Amino acid sequence: YRRTQWLHGPSPVTTFGPKACMLQNPQAVMHIQDPASQRLTWNKPPQSVLVIKKIRDIALLQPFKELCRFLTEVKSMLVYVERKVLEDPAITADENFAHITKKFCTFMEDFDDISNHVDFIICLGGDGTLLYASSLFQESVPPVIAFHLGSLGFLTPFKFDTYQSQLTQVIQGNAALVLRSRLRVRVTKGGIEKNGLSLTNGEVDKALHTDDYQVLNEVVVDRGPSSYLSNVDLFLDGHLITTVQGDGLIVSTPTGSTAYAAAAGASMIHPNVPAMMITPICPHSLSFRPIVVPAGVQLKIMLSCDARHTAWVSFDGRKRQEICHSDSISITTSCFPVPSVCFRDPVIDWFESLAQCLHWNVRKRQNYLSADDDEDD
Amino acid sequence: YRRTQWLHGPSPVTTFGPKACMLQNPQAVMHIQDPASQRLTWNKPPQSVLVIKKIRDIALLQPFKELCRFLTEVKSMLVYVERKVLEDPAITADENFAHITKKFCTFMEDFDDISNHVDFIICLGGDGTLLYASSLFQESVPPVIAFHLGSLGFLTPFKFDTYQSQLTQVIQGNAALVLRSRLRVRVTKGGIEKNGLSLTNGEVDKALHTDDYQVLNEVVVDRGPSSYLSNVDLFLDGHLITTVQGDGLIVSTPTGSTAYAAAAGASMIHPNVPAMMITPICPHSLSFRPIVVPAGVQLKIMLSCDARHTAWVSFDGRKRQEICHSDSISITTSCFPVPSVCFRDPVIDWFESLAQCLHWNVRKRQNYLSADDDEDD
Amino acid sequence: YRRTQWLHGPSPVTTFGPKACMLQNPQAVMHIQDPASQRLTWNKPPQSVLVIKKIRDIALLQPFKELCRFLTEVKSMLVYVERKVLEDPAITADENFAHITKKFCTFMEDFDDISNHVDFIICLGGDGTLLYASSLFQESVPPVIAFHLGSLGFLTPFKFDTYQSQLTQVIQGNAALVLRSRLRVRVTKGGIEKNGLSLTNGEVDKALHTDDYQVLNEVVVDRGPSSYLSNVDLFLDGHLITTVQGDGLIVSTPTGSTAYAAAAGASMIHPNVPAMMITPICPHSLSFRPIVVPAGVQLKIMLSCDARHTAWVSFDGRKRQEICHSDSISITTSCFPVPSVCFRDPVIDWFESLAQCLHWNVRKRQNYLSADDDEDD
Amino acid sequence: YRRTQWLHGPSPVTTFGPKACMLQNPQAVMHIQDPASQRLTWNKPPQSVLVIKKIRDIALLQPFKELCRFLTEVKSMLVYVERKVLEDPAITADENFAHITKKFCTFMEDFDDISNHVDFIICLGGDGTLLYASSLFQESVPPVIAFHLGSLGFLTPFKFDTYQSQLTQVIQGNAALVLRSRLRVRVTKGGIEKNGLSLTNGEVDKALHTDDYQVLNEVVVDRGPSSYLSNVDLFLDGHLITTVQGDGLIVSTPTGSTAYAAAAGASMIHPNVPAMMITPICPHSLSFRPIVVPAGVQLKIMLSCDARHTAWVSFDGRKRQEICHSDSISITTSCFPVPSVCFRDPVIDWFESLAQCLHWNVRKRQNYLSADDDEDD
Repeated sequence: YRRTQWLHGPSPVTTFGPKACMLQNPQAVMHIQDPASQRLTWNKPPQSVLVIKKIRDIALLQPFKELCRFLTEVKSMLVYVERKVLEDPAITADENFAHITKKFCTFMEDFDDISNHVDFIICLGGDGTLLYASSLFQESVPPVIAFHLGSLGFLTPFKFDTYQSQLTQVIQGNAALVLRSRLRVRVTKGGIEKNGLSLTNGEVDKALHTDDYQVLNEVVVDRGPSSYLSNVDLFLDGHLITTVQGDGLIVSTPTGSTAYAAAAGASMIHPNVPAMMITPICPHSLSFRPIVVPAGVQLKIMLSCDARHTAWVSFDGRKRQEICHSDSISITTSCFPVPSVCFRDPVIDWFESLAQCLHWNVRKRQNYLSADDDEDD
Repeated sequence: YRRTQWLHGPSPVTTFGPKACMLQNPQAVMHIQDPASQRLTWNKPPQSVLVIKKIRDIALLQPFKELCRFLTEVKSMLVYVERKVLEDPAITADENFAHITKKFCTFMEDFDDISNHVDFIICLGGDGTLLYASSLFQESVPPVIAFHLGSLGFLTPFKFDTYQSQLTQVIQGNAALVLRSRLRVRVTKGGIEKNGLSLTNGEVDKALHTDDYQVLNEVVVDRGPSSYLSNVDLFLDGHLITTVQGDGLIVSTPTGSTAYAAAAGASMIHPNVPAMMITPICPHSLSFRPIVVPAGVQLKIMLSCDARHTAWVSFDGRKRQEICHSDSISITTSCFPVPSVCFRDPVIDWFESLAQCLHWNVRKRQNYLSADDDEDD
Repeated sequence: YRRTQWLHGPSPVTTFGPKACMLQNPQAVMHIQDPASQRLTWNKPPQSVLVIKKIRDIALLQPFKELCRFLTEVKSMLVYVERKVLEDPAITADENFAHITKKFCTFMEDFDDISNHVDFIICLGGDGTLLYASSLFQESVPPVIAFHLGSLGFLTPFKFDTYQSQLTQVIQGNAALVLRSRLRVRVTKGGIEKNGLSLTNGEVDKALHTDDYQVLNEVVVDRGPSSYLSNVDLFLDGHLITTVQGDGLIVSTPTGSTAYAAAAGASMIHPNVPAMMITPICPHSLSFRPIVVPAGVQLKIMLSCDARHTAWVSFDGRKRQEICHSDSISITTSCFPVPSVCFRDPVIDWFESLAQCLHWNVRKRQNYLSADDDEDD
Repeated sequence: YRRTQWLHGPSPVTTFGPKACMLQNPQAVMHIQDPASQRLTWNKPPQSVLVIKKIRDIALLQPFKELCRFLTEVKSMLVYVERKVLEDPAITADENFAHITKKFCTFMEDFDDISNHVDFIICLGGDGTLLYASSLFQESVPPVIAFHLGSLGFLTPFKFDTYQSQLTQVIQGNAALVLRSRLRVRVTKGGIEKNGLSLTNGEVDKALHTDDYQVLNEVVVDRGPSSYLSNVDLFLDGHLITTVQGDGLIVSTPTGSTAYAAAAGASMIHPNVPAMMITPICPHSLSFRPIVVPAGVQLKIMLSCDARHTAWVSFDGRKRQEICHSDSISITTSCFPVPSVCFRDPVIDWFESLAQCLHWNVRKRQNYLSADDDEDD
């Protein structure tokens, strides 16, 4: 198949009839490399690799050891592994392998910053390993190649069987990439807010505490351990768009649209569509359908004035925290995507995953066909 | 509100960790003016205007006359009107107005081509008037300003009350625009196709008959007058993606996502998201959820090999025709969008319409609130 | 498993607190045999059997012949077969079998009434055969035993492999039955109606033309061959309940809830629940959710006063006809159910079909499990 | 409107064709008074009334006082009120009213059993007051008349304005009732279960601890405060029907189908349909549609063998508790319904509530109509 136009869509003709045209505004022109042509290259040969393994999963043990041996002994790479992975008794019990692990760099989450030391990332296990990898890199993320052992995941397109040839290719560069957009989320605690606009002076600013998160799948605001759901206001570009009454609200990337948002009823969005998905969780209103908004809008979520209970927020299922009346959650699309190596290409990979992970449009096979179904329903 | 990043989303940082980056491919770089900054300007002052009025709608009669008088007498515009609009007895009966209509240019659909004579378009009535306007312009579309008289539409954001000032502003230029993408649909009849790829030689080519359509809302493939639904194959970039068993399939623009696709269960997409929506109509499979794909993919729809009945296709609800075994429907995003003048801005206008046209997330008002709802559900 | 209460649910205690109770009304007391204990018996041994075969389905040919031989030669039954089934060239070409067919009783649909001559019915093929069988019996329906050859159907629970023993058991009686309720639908053409109440005098009565149908799955009112959907009013017990704007409306039995209604988004209802399901088809309103009402309500469907197009009605996908402004469609639960022989019991059979026909809640198998999924989504 | 058949539906004719009929089983015959004819009567005149008021709701204060005065002084009733209602400072501050409260009977929840002392119940406030009333009566429930002050509720059909005449009528008897079925839920802690069947010996039995609940809306099993959802097995009549992966599971009465189940996507069921609704909450599987099963089935919910996290259960939003591996939740329809006094009749009341509480099928009004919509979508 030879693509005849950009995956992003064609540039629109900007003359409208005989006399009208679009007002030129050079400052507002974006230069985007078309998603279908995004490929990996290396400034210098990669030397260090972070291996992320789902912990305490026995089925992954042997593949993990094999992979590490290959990287260390065949490819002469410096392998980074999280300390807790190596502390697994099943690892430490294997003396042969323990010998090799001495050459590894180990680190602890939230303690050691490895973000400038890792040239690429290998994930081994389910989609969760990629969410975890994303969480380790708050800014630029090294390329990720992700292997599944059991069944295909949305984020883990590679079979482990052929890992040697796959990795060799990636190390040589020129692999197809999908840039999975992330959300930059800022939680502001203790601010004084009104109608979504901060009204802060110097003193209040000091009291403010903000935390930033990079999110690959979704931000979830829900009722947490409470039986009572809170009213939550959603602002878009500073305007109050709607109030959520229900179990909560999901703001997801296209990548996240096939995760929790799909469970909550959203349509699925291909990761190369520049958009955010807003999905209510069990809304009281029958007409609260999910919506898809441009990637560049600025969302803000706060408790409603009249909310009688707090809400809880989590980021890719982690870092769950309470949201009180003076707090706000700001969400925009991040400029630091996760560059994932594609197995075939971004479009084919995605439809493979839809079929295999979500059984999308699986139908009963017609076991026998007839020339006429006039009597059939 | 001052936007701090492009509505389209930020340009992604394209270095990935210390050593990786995106392979530069200048030929694949798009230069896109950010949707939020798209504004109308004029190369020369507009002189001709097409007025589209829903026919036989009595409530529109007086506004239509007023508007035409204003355009002709105050603005000295040359007014284009479809002949059948003027043939309405309610128009011809008014001698005073008949006098003015003599200055109009009239035309007949499918007979006269006015596409190079109209500087801008005014729509009066429901969303249907804009679909109709779109159908008259198969390539570049002049700017459209659309008025509703009763209730707000997705495509008709302006109230008629203040039409004089609104039109004066548009004629002066510098109005905010939303470029509503269209689909370019090609129906190929009588081709010999296999697996979505044309296998044609010279002779067959001669036999082929193709028709092109520009579609603003959606292409619908359904069972037409038949009681029996046909199996339809959907190809994306030449690959068979899925087979549709059910009442049919909708391929819609973001603009169309709030029309028939919403009725069929789709999430709603803002018109500035470069995407296409694929929505099944009453699918047999419980797991056939709507999906959103990048605007640049190439879709093709054909009857399945084993389909026992034909299917029917329509374009924005018009030009309904039968699809047989050798026919195919190709769909891509067109490079000729419909430039619609915004009432406020593309984002605010859309949420207004969601609320007023679709009652999106309308909830029961809590008429009285208490400090505690422990006893409440 | 031993059921400890009726499948229908327990009889409610009808004293309410120390002093209140339900007003006794012996005329309003129903005597219902609990669905779980409904079993077939014979007043006299059955002698005649109607065999319904999906026509022109080659895979069914051999089983059909085998079955007819068994019924005729082993069981000495009188076999009824529709004439067009025997006219199939694949049947007439087989001289050996043609010899046997001479002993059959043949009939033509809409011409011969066999409703008092058939002791039981055997269906061979898909669910459509049972819908067809139902249409032949406008009042009492003989017991039906339905075989699938390919994949299990909702209405065809028996595998053909063991047909001899299954049929022998049924002929002996004492098989578990599920009484599948039907809808009695009356189409009144040309009546003068207002607000759902007939205002007819003698003369008008003469002009009225009514048709009655017994429906096993559903009545569908839709836009038929028209591109334009009509507004349709739904009355329940004489009250206007709602107006449908969209592609149409489905009124289905619980049996039909897993057919077209499921495709249109309805929840699935077990056939032993005494209810009707009302499901809109692609409604304009986001909040038009399907509803389930008691089996005994009286529904009436008419075009709305302001409807600008006609609607079309069909009955189990058959007998499609146009509905104009003076027509009405009355729907109630029929007192003539279809008694279907169960494979195991009504509950187990249904869940088997949900899984196999609709892939209900099919999930991705977790191929490997770990003790901790903290890193997993 | 004069009903021509029972609301429950007609008794099916039980002869099937010329020779078959239903096997008579007198022990399995239920005698049910048709729902449409269920009316309240009194064995003796009612003397005591429980008044339930949403606490700390200022808007209810004046109506509550008025009502209590009327009951005490005009109707000479003995008024029961929960102690915490009277301890509201807004009540105690009013000396005039405090004087009257001395005549009231007060009680404390979970401490005093009033179930045999109350002749009828008056609810004042939202639907929550009726859920609360239900929870106070684990067996027979006195008749309930429920008033809303702000907006109509599903469970609170009466306007307060005319409370005097309404109450006078009820006290005289002969009011229409809807018997709202409840679920009897038994939570068994610490049992040893396998495949949904208890394998317990004497010693284990002693260790077992069971709790029973009567539930008017729904039983919810969810992940509680955990971020991780657990796998939950659903058994029906002892068979494993399905496994739930997702946020949880709702088992609701028809009354509850318009509450949390509707938010989770269920169809709405009229309260006179003898059924239970099973609705997943945000299921992983796209094909996990809600289902409606006969009221008499026996459901059991347990953690799956391989569940790695516990689940939580709650009853009408109350009494939330953790469910561990050896625990099970058994659910059947209770024989103790809540007899609610209807405002008009069970059917009309329900559709009123659908429209007003859930905005069911609220559509944009067509503000102007034309004779032709050929140009309209």
